[in-house]
Amino acid sequence: MGVYASIDLGGTKIAGALAAEDGQVLAQRIIATESHAGPPAVLARIARLIEDLAAEVGVRPLALGMGVPGLADLEQGVVKFLPNLPTQWREVPAGAHLAQALGCPVRLLNDVRMATLGELVYGYGGRGSGPMQGAMVFYALGTGIGGGLAIDGRLYLGPFGASAEVGHMTVVPDGPACSCGSRGCLEIYAAGPAITGQGVRLLLAGQTTCLYDLVEGRPERVNPAVMARAAALGDERVRAVLVQAAEYLGISVANAILMVHPRLVVLGGSVAEIGPLLFDTVRAAVAWRVGMFSAADVAIVPSQLGNRAGLLGGIALAAGVGI
Amino acid sequence: MGVYASIDLGGTKIAGALAAEDGQVLAQRIIATESHAGPPAVLARIARLIEDLAAEVGVRPLALGMGVPGLADLEQGVVKFLPNLPTQWREVPAGAHLAQALGCPVRLLNDVRMATLGELVYGYGGRGSGPMQGAMVFYALGTGIGGGLAIDGRLYLGPFGASAEVGHMTVVPDGPACSCGSRGCLEIYAAGPAITGQGVRLLLAGQTTCLYDLVEGRPERVNPAVMARAAALGDERVRAVLVQAAEYLGISVANAILMVHPRLVVLGGSVAEIGPLLFDTVRAAVAWRVGMFSAADVAIVPSQLGNRAGLLGGIALAAGVGI
Repeated sequence: MGVYASIDLGGTKIAGALAAEDGQVLAQRIIATESHAGPPAVLARIARLIEDLAAEVGVRPLALGMGVPGLADLEQGVVKFLPNLPTQWREVPAGAHLAQALGCPVRLLNDVRMATLGELVYGYGGRGSGPMQGAMVFYALGTGIGGGLAIDGRLYLGPFGASAEVGHMTVVPDGPACSCGSRGCLEIYAAGPAITGQGVRLLLAGQTTCLYDLVEGRPERVNPAVMARAAALGDERVRAVLVQAAEYLGISVANAILMVHPRLVVLGGSVAEIGPLLFDTVRAAVAWRVGMFSAADVAIVPSQLGNRAGLLGGIALAAGVGI
Repeated sequence: MGVYASIDLGGTKIAGALAAEDGQVLAQRIIATESHAGPPAVLARIARLIEDLAAEVGVRPLALGMGVPGLADLEQGVVKFLPNLPTQWREVPAGAHLAQALGCPVRLLNDVRMATLGELVYGYGGRGSGPMQGAMVFYALGTGIGGGLAIDGRLYLGPFGASAEVGHMTVVPDGPACSCGSRGCLEIYAAGPAITGQGVRLLLAGQTTCLYDLVEGRPERVNPAVMARAAALGDERVRAVLVQAAEYLGISVANAILMVHPRLVVLGGSVAEIGPLLFDTVRAAVAWRVGMFSAADVAIVPSQLGNRAGLLGGIALAAGVGI
C-alpha cells in the first residue's frame, strides 16, 4: 500500500503527516508557520517537514496533498488568496514549488474542503463498502464557518473550489454586517467567537451561575464546550445562548438539506463540541423546517475524525481518492 | 431519430406532446384533467391522449416521460403523493399502468424537476457542444415555488427526487407560517399569489397610479407581469412591492450559489415575467451577498422555454437524456 503525505497549513501552525492510503498515520508533526517570513520560507519549512517525516518512517511519499486556509486552484496548484496570512500569499505557485522540492506530485485544496474529503473517505462517509451514494455536507464550525459538499462519493468543488460556503449563507436578511460584505450570515450567529462572546458578556454582567464557577470567573477560559458544561449543570442563560446559536445553525442545515437532500450532514469544529444540546436543537429545527419531504433519513452527526479530518483529507487528496 | 411522448399532469389540465429526441415537437394537445374521476380514469385519459397524438403523427413513441405535481418515485414508477389532487393519488403505480396501456416504457418525475430537465437539455443548459459542466439551478416561480438542480449535465434528484426545494428554504427565521409547516419560506414572499396579493391590496387601498389604469380597476386582472408594466410606467408603490419580492428571491439565489456554485441559474414561471426589474434586483443582491468568491461567472437568466420546459423535459426523460 502506498504512502502519502499531507499538510494542513494554518495561520499559526503547520500540521504534517505521512500515512498509508487506508488512513493509517505513520508519522505526524506540528510546527510553527512563521508566516511573516513570506511564502518561499514557509514552503521551504513545509518541504523540510515532509523530508523529516519521510526520514523518520524510512519511506518517501508518492504524493502530497496540502490544505490552505483560503482559495486554491486545484488544477493549477496555485494558492490564490489566504485572507488570514500576509498579503504575499496571492497567486503563489505552491504546487509546482513543492513538487520540485519533494520530487512528487502535489495537490492543493481549501482546508475545509480537504477536511470534508477526510470525513468522506475516512469518517462516516467512508463507512460503506463502496463510494458513498448521495450527498454529504460538512460544516467546520470554528473561528469562522466553512463547509464542503460531496456528491456520490466525490468532493464537489464547483468552478474554482468555492462551493458549500455554508457560513455565509444569509440566515437573517437585515442582520449585522459580515466580514464577507454581506449581512446576517450564519457565521455571525453560530461561529465560535459569536457564542463565546455571548458567554463572556453574560459572565461579565454577573448573569451566569455554573459558568462562573467552571471558568473561575476568567473570561479567557470561556468557550463553547465549557458553556455546554455550564448549560448541562443548569445555567439557564448560557443554555439560551447555545440554543439560539444552534437554531440559526438549524436553519442553515435545513436550507442545505432542502437544496441537496444529503444522506449525511457532518458537524465539526469547536462549536460542535457543544454536543447533544447542539445536535438535538439542530435536528429539531430540521424536523419542522423541512416540510416538503421527510428529512428523517438525513443523518446529522458529529465529526468522527475531529482535528484529524484535515490531515486525513490530505492523504485522500494525495492518493486521488474521493476527488 | 426516435420519437418520444411527454405528459405534464396538472391539477386542472393535462398537456401531452410527441417530439423527436432533438426537441422538435411533432404534435401536442391539452385536455382537462377531470381529477374528480379518480386515478384510473385520469390514467386512461392520458393513455388515450398519447394514442391520439401517435395516430395524428403516424408514429408510435419509443417511451413516455410524465411529470406529476408532487412526489413520484422514478425507480418504481409510482406516484407517491400529489398535494393538489384528490387523496386517491397516493402510491399509484402509474408507470406500470401506462406502460401496459401504451406498450412502451414510462418514466415518472416531479413536474418541476422535469421542467429543470427541459431547461438543462433543450434550454440554456443545452447550448454547449456536450453535457453542461458544473451545476444548474432552476426556479419555477409560479403559484408556488419549486426548483431543480442539475450537476455536470445530469439532473440531481437526491434519495427520492426531492432535492432543490428552493421555495421552502427559510429566508426569514420568524416569518409567517408556510403551508409546508415551516416559517418564513421564500414562497411566502416571492410566489405569484404573494406578489399579486400585495398588488391587489394597493389597488383596493387606492394607492396605485398606473396599475389602476392598466387593470381598469379590476383586482382579478392583477398579476406580476401587469404589476411590472405599472412599475415601468412609474407606479412607485407597485415597484417597491416587486423589488422587495425580488430581494427575497435574491437572498435565496445567493444562498443557492454559496451552496453549489452553479454556472447557471434559470428563473421561470409567472413571477419571472416581471422581467428586468426582477433580474436586476436578484443580480444586485447576489453581487453583494456572495462575498466569499466572485459570483460574476454565474449567469442568472430567464427561462428560454417558458411553458414548454415541462413537456420538453418529458421528452428528455423518455429518451433518458440528462438523467
